[in-house]
Amino acid sequence: MARGRTAKVLTTKIDGSAVARHPDELIVEEPLAIHLDDNLVTTTMRTPGHDFELAAGFVFTEGLLAGVAVQTCRYCGTGSAVETEFNVVSVETGGKAPVPVPRLGTTTSSCGLCGSESIDTLCERLAPLTDLAPFELAVLAAVPDRMVEQQTLFQATGAVHAAGAFTRAGDAVVVREDVGRHNAVDKVVGRLLLDGALPASDLGLYVSGRASFEIVQKAWAAGFGAVVAVSAPTSLAVDTARRAGITLAGFVRDGRMNIYAPERLPS
Amino acid sequence: MARGRTAKVLTTKIDGSAVARHPDELIVEEPLAIHLDDNLVTTTMRTPGHDFELAAGFVFTEGLLAGVAVQTCRYCGTGSAVETEFNVVSVETGGKAPVPVPRLGTTTSSCGLCGSESIDTLCERLAPLTDLAPFELAVLAAVPDRMVEQQTLFQATGAVHAAGAFTRAGDAVVVREDVGRHNAVDKVVGRLLLDGALPASDLGLYVSGRASFEIVQKAWAAGFGAVVAVSAPTSLAVDTARRAGITLAGFVRDGRMNIYAPERLPS
Repeated sequence: MARGRTAKVLTTKIDGSAVARHPDELIVEEPLAIHLDDNLVTTTMRTPGHDFELAAGFVFTEGLLAGVAVQTCRYCGTGSAVETEFNVVSVETGGKAPVPVPRLGTTTSSCGLCGSESIDTLCERLAPLTDLAPFELAVLAAVPDRMVEQQTLFQATGAVHAAGAFTRAGDAVVVREDVGRHNAVDKVVGRLLLDGALPASDLGLYVSGRASFEIVQKAWAAGFGAVVAVSAPTSLAVDTARRAGITLAGFVRDGRMNIYAPERLPS
Repeated sequence: MARGRTAKVLTTKIDGSAVARHPDELIVEEPLAIHLDDNLVTTTMRTPGHDFELAAGFVFTEGLLAGVAVQTCRYCGTGSAVETEFNVVSVETGGKAPVPVPRLGTTTSSCGLCGSESIDTLCERLAPLTDLAPFELAVLAAVPDRMVEQQTLFQATGAVHAAGAFTRAGDAVVVREDVGRHNAVDKVVGRLLLDGALPASDLGLYVSGRASFEIVQKAWAAGFGAVVAVSAPTSLAVDTARRAGITLAGFVRDGRMNIYAPERLPS
């Protein structure tokens, strides 16, 4: 059961006609089952480490806490509240959180299902972030360069996503890496939640890859005022950020970026 | 409801102190609800197009068909068996496929959950691919270059994953792109399934990004003899490919690659 975050495997390296055996450092991927109180909520493939943050962030951003506070996180089986190397975690609210329903049921009968309805559904539980001061553009443009030195697993394996929270001055508050990009965001949000630092109105969210609908959804749930993505957003992510009142910057690299939301910069 | 695979949005492009308004082409992301007969199985965020392939590929690679044949695919609501622009699809087996159980239940009580058990679970439904002839290394190394010209959505948006099936000569058989990398694989597998071309023993699977556990799992279910990934595999993907008897090549680019499975090349 003992697993690190990276693992060495022997690989056959081929370069043209040259063949050599070399060790290669790979990112570890292991399942994590997340419970809310005693109910299994999901099983996700993740990189071990910061499991309590991941579990707490997941149930928070998915709206499963419904405003109820987390009392503790622990590993099932051992009951340990200290991070170890097990793969089943429970987020405990003393039974105060609603019993989660299997998520398959939520969209069963809708035959008009579409992206704009997905946003409407979010609007039912999340209010637009209306009174946030905008982030300075120069700060947003500089975020990736300030985050990259903390992406140590990426430097080792080249196969891991990062997410981070940054201040209005552009300083990194927390950076997390995971084989799953949603997991990296959940770990960041979970850290802030466990620190009592939500809503994150004075913070922005950085992601090392693309900004999809689910990334913006998680940012909205946590109250981030801005999302900075190194790669492209999707169409639905842009629509969602505009509805949420979140500043969304994409392709943020080498001093350039595209601002997708708001639709027009304040003049 | 009418949606293409890309969408144009106005964006504010910032380059140093220069600010300009420009249209930008984004990849479309829309939910697709997948039913098996009349039971909702999952809702996935995907790029519209090849929806029947995606739905059929998903239920096949997840083992939900249990060997039963697909009779037809259709859109719920309209009942249309022609691809349109709706977001709810049903894969029909005439009720012969087992009723899918909500997937949350499958790992409820296991507190010893770990990656190797995930592989053991696969082994219960999938036999190792033992009698496949190996692919030529030069063929594997050349696959990404032969696929890239068909990745038209990537060229337009830079935000989409590709998957493809290739022959032992390295020719592309089918290439699909999607905002979700699992979806791209499911679309490829679904196409082969609907064409009666599974198991894909004489084909390899190409993915434009990383090879995770779930990608190798889907390749195994479809019977691909090799997986070629442009980026890194995870540790669990390597373990799974070795157990499955699938040749796994990672970091396949510029004439170089790493062979992770088999553990040693046949001499």
